[in-house]
Amino acid sequence: MALPRYAYLGPAGTFTEAALRQVVSPDDAVYLPQTDVTSAIAAVRAGDADFAVVAIESTAEGGVTATLDSLASGEPLVLLREVLVPVQFTLAAAPGRTLADVRRISAHPHAWVQCRRWIAEHLPDAVHVPATSNTAPAALIASGGSGELPFDAALVPPPAVETYGLTTLAEHVADTASAVTRFVVVGHPGDVPPPTGADKTTLVVHLPDNEAGALLAMLEQFAVRGVNLSRIESRPIGDSLGRYSFSIDAEGHIRDERVGEAIMGLHRRCPFVRFLGSYPRADAVEPTVHVGTADADFVEARSWLREVRGGTAT
Amino acid sequence: MALPRYAYLGPAGTFTEAALRQVVSPDDAVYLPQTDVTSAIAAVRAGDADFAVVAIESTAEGGVTATLDSLASGEPLVLLREVLVPVQFTLAAAPGRTLADVRRISAHPHAWVQCRRWIAEHLPDAVHVPATSNTAPAALIASGGSGELPFDAALVPPPAVETYGLTTLAEHVADTASAVTRFVVVGHPGDVPPPTGADKTTLVVHLPDNEAGALLAMLEQFAVRGVNLSRIESRPIGDSLGRYSFSIDAEGHIRDERVGEAIMGLHRRCPFVRFLGSYPRADAVEPTVHVGTADADFVEARSWLREVRGGTAT
Amino acid sequence: MALPRYAYLGPAGTFTEAALRQVVSPDDAVYLPQTDVTSAIAAVRAGDADFAVVAIESTAEGGVTATLDSLASGEPLVLLREVLVPVQFTLAAAPGRTLADVRRISAHPHAWVQCRRWIAEHLPDAVHVPATSNTAPAALIASGGSGELPFDAALVPPPAVETYGLTTLAEHVADTASAVTRFVVVGHPGDVPPPTGADKTTLVVHLPDNEAGALLAMLEQFAVRGVNLSRIESRPIGDSLGRYSFSIDAEGHIRDERVGEAIMGLHRRCPFVRFLGSYPRADAVEPTVHVGTADADFVEARSWLREVRGGTAT
Amino acid sequence: MALPRYAYLGPAGTFTEAALRQVVSPDDAVYLPQTDVTSAIAAVRAGDADFAVVAIESTAEGGVTATLDSLASGEPLVLLREVLVPVQFTLAAAPGRTLADVRRISAHPHAWVQCRRWIAEHLPDAVHVPATSNTAPAALIASGGSGELPFDAALVPPPAVETYGLTTLAEHVADTASAVTRFVVVGHPGDVPPPTGADKTTLVVHLPDNEAGALLAMLEQFAVRGVNLSRIESRPIGDSLGRYSFSIDAEGHIRDERVGEAIMGLHRRCPFVRFLGSYPRADAVEPTVHVGTADADFVEARSWLREVRGGTAT
Repeated sequence: MALPRYAYLGPAGTFTEAALRQVVSPDDAVYLPQTDVTSAIAAVRAGDADFAVVAIESTAEGGVTATLDSLASGEPLVLLREVLVPVQFTLAAAPGRTLADVRRISAHPHAWVQCRRWIAEHLPDAVHVPATSNTAPAALIASGGSGELPFDAALVPPPAVETYGLTTLAEHVADTASAVTRFVVVGHPGDVPPPTGADKTTLVVHLPDNEAGALLAMLEQFAVRGVNLSRIESRPIGDSLGRYSFSIDAEGHIRDERVGEAIMGLHRRCPFVRFLGSYPRADAVEPTVHVGTADADFVEARSWLREVRGGTAT
Repeated sequence: MALPRYAYLGPAGTFTEAALRQVVSPDDAVYLPQTDVTSAIAAVRAGDADFAVVAIESTAEGGVTATLDSLASGEPLVLLREVLVPVQFTLAAAPGRTLADVRRISAHPHAWVQCRRWIAEHLPDAVHVPATSNTAPAALIASGGSGELPFDAALVPPPAVETYGLTTLAEHVADTASAVTRFVVVGHPGDVPPPTGADKTTLVVHLPDNEAGALLAMLEQFAVRGVNLSRIESRPIGDSLGRYSFSIDAEGHIRDERVGEAIMGLHRRCPFVRFLGSYPRADAVEPTVHVGTADADFVEARSWLREVRGGTAT
Repeated sequence: MALPRYAYLGPAGTFTEAALRQVVSPDDAVYLPQTDVTSAIAAVRAGDADFAVVAIESTAEGGVTATLDSLASGEPLVLLREVLVPVQFTLAAAPGRTLADVRRISAHPHAWVQCRRWIAEHLPDAVHVPATSNTAPAALIASGGSGELPFDAALVPPPAVETYGLTTLAEHVADTASAVTRFVVVGHPGDVPPPTGADKTTLVVHLPDNEAGALLAMLEQFAVRGVNLSRIESRPIGDSLGRYSFSIDAEGHIRDERVGEAIMGLHRRCPFVRFLGSYPRADAVEPTVHVGTADADFVEARSWLREVRGGTAT
Repeated sequence: MALPRYAYLGPAGTFTEAALRQVVSPDDAVYLPQTDVTSAIAAVRAGDADFAVVAIESTAEGGVTATLDSLASGEPLVLLREVLVPVQFTLAAAPGRTLADVRRISAHPHAWVQCRRWIAEHLPDAVHVPATSNTAPAALIASGGSGELPFDAALVPPPAVETYGLTTLAEHVADTASAVTRFVVVGHPGDVPPPTGADKTTLVVHLPDNEAGALLAMLEQFAVRGVNLSRIESRPIGDSLGRYSFSIDAEGHIRDERVGEAIMGLHRRCPFVRFLGSYPRADAVEPTVHVGTADADFVEARSWLREVRGGTAT
């Protein structure tokens, strides 16, 4: 039987690869490195991969725009699993370099933001040379002579030091020790895993235009069914100022009665609702189920309504 | 075929009889006068009558306690129809009496309240002799000599003047010209009439104890499904201060999707919910149906959720 | 110095007199018995009494209509104190009568309602002879021969047995052992007592017409300031079906910041708001003060806003 | 008298310079170009500039993280004015280049995102060479020979073509014709402009931790005072997943009574609220003022409460 194929943001040494290793060993799967998140997701849609592993949220930057945008339109895909990866950076360079040499630092813009304070303190005169990925500068160093490079050092994920044969100038340079990035496994809607009792459901919702109170009304769709939200982020829809798309994580599984009814309520009221998956929470925390909102309560209420409508309730 | 039997607060000449005549002609039904509202409702439960016609709300006094209490417990009965009857009173007496003779006025306490201002102006020295019904003093006058009666005149419904052979001393003595009493036809749950598009649903709901915000939460069950309330009244439950029962009229029919879902929400959250009927509104006003709350919207949303859960939504 | 004068629903032996005795001894006040609640309140407005003691709510019947109506319009008066009186009834008669003799029972309609079950069980054939007050039949018995009375026995408050020299046929005949009536001392707005930390504020509020969600909006005025409601009752306003007046008890004192801001919110949005007093709760229960809603929080927020507006906040 | 000094993201040719020109002519002010948004804001705090002009929101990317972060902490600064600048891009190159030559395109990541569809269609094989600003590649071209550059063409703001002496390869290459970026003038809190009747107030708010319904409660603080929100964006606070900061634009001015009371409500309930300015809306749209929420309503309500508390309300 063929091994499952996983597209991800490569090459070796990225945080995404670290996430993928948590999901499946390279012995049990085909790893398909891609140049960006959008390509990884496109590979699943094209049938070139079975799954994609992509970052969806970081403590430093919030939702990952490219991932959210790629999932919000096009052929429906869903999140099947989430994986948390601690985010740390190492300041590394070609062998022979020292910290005193460093004036120009290559870094992905997100990496730069996450290490700003450390750099301001230790290398106040350093300038940022933007990189297209966290490992691109490492690969550049590995591939050639340092004399021609437009930078002196790079901020890279710790595994990249060994992968690319670099020298470590400083470790743990990220400003926030607890920073973490949330990765997700993306696959086809037919593969939604069954409820485990500690699940999360991800949605994209557009609010009705020009409705004062539309956000309040959307939140009440959840509240009245006893569904808590663990994440809510808004982004402009992109065609004009003032229209917003909400990316939401709700506690519970699409197969839970309360979640299903809440989502139907959104579907009836909002111009756009897309289900992006129900999957086990990485932290395995079970939601608080409020009085009257367990599945059995919904089933019993339907049975009662049937009797009331039929004239046989007692 | 046997004529349908209607229990009502008699005797002839009551406002209830006027309501009953709007429902069915005495030629097409058996009129079964009762001594009070509770007895009329009990007759239906006992099988001695097919229907009861009883007052449920008046502009002057609000909900009729005896009716609401009788329906809220015991074998389930439902409201099948509502009828509005304008409330007017005539000050009447035995033949030969004049307005100048009047010192003691017999009146049901509710009638007295509704004519207070007229009496204060025209008969400031008159005293109230409480009567057990609006027609009881008329019957007393009709049955004997005025000399022995403990009153000089009575406040009676206009039809009672002719029925009991009284003399009119003054007409239209109620303080509020627009006063009206709402009567309902009570019957068995199996007889709930089908939706007409301009219906009303009556409920009794007890709130969860000791929950700040329980009333707010109950109202949100309706609001989030787009169901407006046309009447809400609270009464103490009767076993201690601080616990309340709500009598509610919601716009729409129990067979409407939005009403059904709202009532299931109440059923899941509240310790007691009783359905008291869905029936055409006397004023035939159709409810505003908010975006996304028509039956078709609910049906479509269920179909969509089924596809989402099955992994086949597009 | 003149003794304070208290108007109340007399005569001796009423529940109201029992409430008045809890408020002030007959040695320290002038007791002014009145024929009804409306007259007692009118006596304060006319300057004939300094205070009135009147029933405002009973477990069996809810709000006392006459009291609420008298306070809701006319010259402003306020509640200064509340007193709870247990409600019990004795079935009493003229000396020489026995329970076996009883066919006709005189009782105020409220008393009759509260003893219905006892009577149905012990005197199933008894008929109700309505009385204008709880002590009126006792006074009738005391004043004359039993042969001429239109009743055989009466439901009276326990103290009336001794006051009027009656014979007890049965004690504790009320159906609900825990029944209690809430009485209030009514006085002038200038006499509002200071906050004690366990106070209650009573209001009358009319909702804006034709506004779906007006009740929800009213409740949110309280909720957003962290003010809980301990009682809410609705009654029709009386000029047409569908317009309601709400009688509300809120936890806290009008001088509490959160209560003041909530009431100003109502005043701005509702067509009619009347303050009916802030006074110590009979049960002395202190309200839960939610985060950010203590007086000090409001004072600090005002100071902060002043700095923000002045450009000096840090 | 000294001319006012404006720090902004330079150099000449940026969108920010276009915004600054809308605010003040170079003849009437000293233009102080900075290398990034953070430096521009820091210049005001350091006293090196009187004002900063910075982007705060774009249709494509939403809130500008660096601006929002710089304003959310540190010495308080406020927004004094907003300016809208249409966003367009020109694909430009060194003189002599043609569209057929283009394989590598230098562009700021935001610019790249906004032109993705055009590039996919017209230059499907082009690769992205990230630039640190929209004008950096133009400056590189202007400063040297094209042979040494790591790119063949660049996406630049239209004014940069002339400023840097470039050749236009294609105009209007942004995917969304209506894209616009909102810039703001940042200054000191003492300079908040007076209300104009069509104002906007910007806030940063952190929600209380671990409170289900905290977002709903925050929105109700606005709703209950009749304050609409024109923008709400959430971002993680950065120290852990699951904690969010909200960036909010509310309709109205901090000196409006309803806005002041709403903000005090937030201040009392939320762990962090920072006022970021009240200033005229660029679109000059006046807010809907709901019944009972005009300044006069608040003033009258305070006066009424004072009378009620003093016992002199009528």
